[in-house]
Amino acid sequence: MRSDGDIREVTVETERAGRYPVRVGRGVLGDLPELVREHVSGGADPAHLAIISDDRVAELYGDRVRGLLDGIAPVTLHTFPHGEQNKNRLQWAALTDSLLERGVGRDGWVIALGGGVTGDLAGFVAATYMRGIPVVQIPTSLVAMIDSAVGGKTGIDLPGGKNLVGAFHPPRFVLVDVELTGTLPRRERAQGLVEALKHGAILDVAYFETLLAEADRLLDGDPRASFRAVLRSVELKARVVSLDEREGGLRQILNFGHTLGHALEASSGYRLPHGSAVAQGMVLEARVGERLGVTRRGTADRIAEGVRRLELEPETGPSDEARVDALMERAARDKKARAGAVRYVLLREVGATRPEEGWSREVEDEVVRQVLRGAEGRRV
Amino acid sequence: MRSDGDIREVTVETERAGRYPVRVGRGVLGDLPELVREHVSGGADPAHLAIISDDRVAELYGDRVRGLLDGIAPVTLHTFPHGEQNKNRLQWAALTDSLLERGVGRDGWVIALGGGVTGDLAGFVAATYMRGIPVVQIPTSLVAMIDSAVGGKTGIDLPGGKNLVGAFHPPRFVLVDVELTGTLPRRERAQGLVEALKHGAILDVAYFETLLAEADRLLDGDPRASFRAVLRSVELKARVVSLDEREGGLRQILNFGHTLGHALEASSGYRLPHGSAVAQGMVLEARVGERLGVTRRGTADRIAEGVRRLELEPETGPSDEARVDALMERAARDKKARAGAVRYVLLREVGATRPEEGWSREVEDEVVRQVLRGAEGRRV
Repeated sequence: MRSDGDIREVTVETERAGRYPVRVGRGVLGDLPELVREHVSGGADPAHLAIISDDRVAELYGDRVRGLLDGIAPVTLHTFPHGEQNKNRLQWAALTDSLLERGVGRDGWVIALGGGVTGDLAGFVAATYMRGIPVVQIPTSLVAMIDSAVGGKTGIDLPGGKNLVGAFHPPRFVLVDVELTGTLPRRERAQGLVEALKHGAILDVAYFETLLAEADRLLDGDPRASFRAVLRSVELKARVVSLDEREGGLRQILNFGHTLGHALEASSGYRLPHGSAVAQGMVLEARVGERLGVTRRGTADRIAEGVRRLELEPETGPSDEARVDALMERAARDKKARAGAVRYVLLREVGATRPEEGWSREVEDEVVRQVLRGAEGRRV
Repeated sequence: MRSDGDIREVTVETERAGRYPVRVGRGVLGDLPELVREHVSGGADPAHLAIISDDRVAELYGDRVRGLLDGIAPVTLHTFPHGEQNKNRLQWAALTDSLLERGVGRDGWVIALGGGVTGDLAGFVAATYMRGIPVVQIPTSLVAMIDSAVGGKTGIDLPGGKNLVGAFHPPRFVLVDVELTGTLPRRERAQGLVEALKHGAILDVAYFETLLAEADRLLDGDPRASFRAVLRSVELKARVVSLDEREGGLRQILNFGHTLGHALEASSGYRLPHGSAVAQGMVLEARVGERLGVTRRGTADRIAEGVRRLELEPETGPSDEARVDALMERAARDKKARAGAVRYVLLREVGATRPEEGWSREVEDEVVRQVLRGAEGRRV
């Protein structure tokens, strides 16, 4: 049984594809057939529902989702091997071919069932299949619920960097059933909660403090705490992407921690998980702001405290000149770099950015280098 | 020198990306730098201009276009081997990697310089590069000027069919300099003029008759005749895609001749050129309409006459049952098939379709089979 208090619908406005809803709740997966029927355009049901999932998630939820969709249209399940290393052109091509083989036409839909990798990869398959077919996002990991399932970004990684190929392809709807995270281990929840911490850090100090206070319950997978955090993150992200879908302005603030985070992640050969890397990136980028005198002193330490509550390591450890060079080079290669200059989102304090300077700004390399070199000295 | 009479600007409205202009004229390539500067958004010039071209066109026009763009931003030239067989995932990946290697960022633009293959492939590279960067279309073949450069469709072929992967990615602008077709041989012009004939057949009987009357001059590459034909086709196509960008309705009429045309092309292993295949497809599909009693008698013969004036073969020749089966199977696999049923655009007569039946309609297989079997008997 569910009560109304456990279900909320948040609306995302898009520039090009109208609005779409994000239904967040406990046990709402069962609403899937009703939502599919509600969001059909032109009156006709989809002719084919192609579930795309990685092998692990397919085993956990594939049959259940297939069962829910049976009766609306023919349902097929298309899987790929789990892991970020498979968010690549090869798997994109293989999934595309798999849909073709099973006869999915222009009136078919993709149901993206899984974590962030699945959402991005399946979304990009849908975005490019016969010039674009609808996609429904059903995130199953905390990081996908909190962050990646909302906003319409899809893409794949190249050897040179993450998400270098992709498309904006807003979903028909997003269905977020927080109970699907029941199987996640504690350290994987932490990865997702880093993005929640980011939402608090850039937009909402009260939410940031709540996350610190409830960190232990959130890591435990407490359903009510998880529901509240996912809902607040979805609300914040929906507001940002509705105001600026294509990252021309405001949406850039969502990149807080990501410029150096991506550099750390890439330079580790992707052994450092994304959330862990962004956590350290946020601390470093807050230090950049403090060093420039635009971020209130103590902000980086407060973020580091939040990261520790998530049982992650907030410090990057010592960086010699070779590593500093490597990180700077990675940061410059990040696709957020415009015309070669690296841009950073700088906070005013926890819960606020600095719109008066534009949503992000260039920072002299030397300032960033000093922070990277000094990372060791600040270790606690 | 050019007179105003030799330059026209046609506007295309898009659902999602505003409007863009198609400048058509003789000798208008020199307007390129002015147009780039005019269509920059946000005030800043593009940071990088990446010309994408096949090896042949690069040799003909690469230096000239590079010279025109020098001074606006760094210019790089990225080539791929010519030919439809290279409009594939491999070349898409190679061009993407080439842009990355040369440091093209999110504020770079793609300049698609070439025929239909280049427009589709380079457009798809731009559509998916870092989730989409602007593209400018500069068609150099008659078929690209008359048809493919306008409308925002981009894509690549898969072994299973043409354009099965792609995206809608409207250009910033299209620059159509009919003098660039000066090097085209007569039989390649004919390929492009088939699409012009199609525009006349579905929308404008006067234009259709003009094409028949001027066929010889058009095949010769007469500049004034070419300018008039390209301009009229651009006007007609711009009107259709402005009313229906995504082929939900009206735009389907542009597929006249293409359902069976694609089947003929594919079943020939792509040895039959696209234009030749569509020419035969139009004649066959007009016969389907006549057989159903919805197309005025004599329409197919009149179209066949137009095809002959272009010095192409209007008849498919005899088809035994095995070939009929193969063609029907190909037609059913076409991505225009919805839920398995094959749809055809049927004419009322030359210059008019039948909107009251929807822009396309399902036709019983047996009717199409009879036409395919009988193709031989109608040979003249």
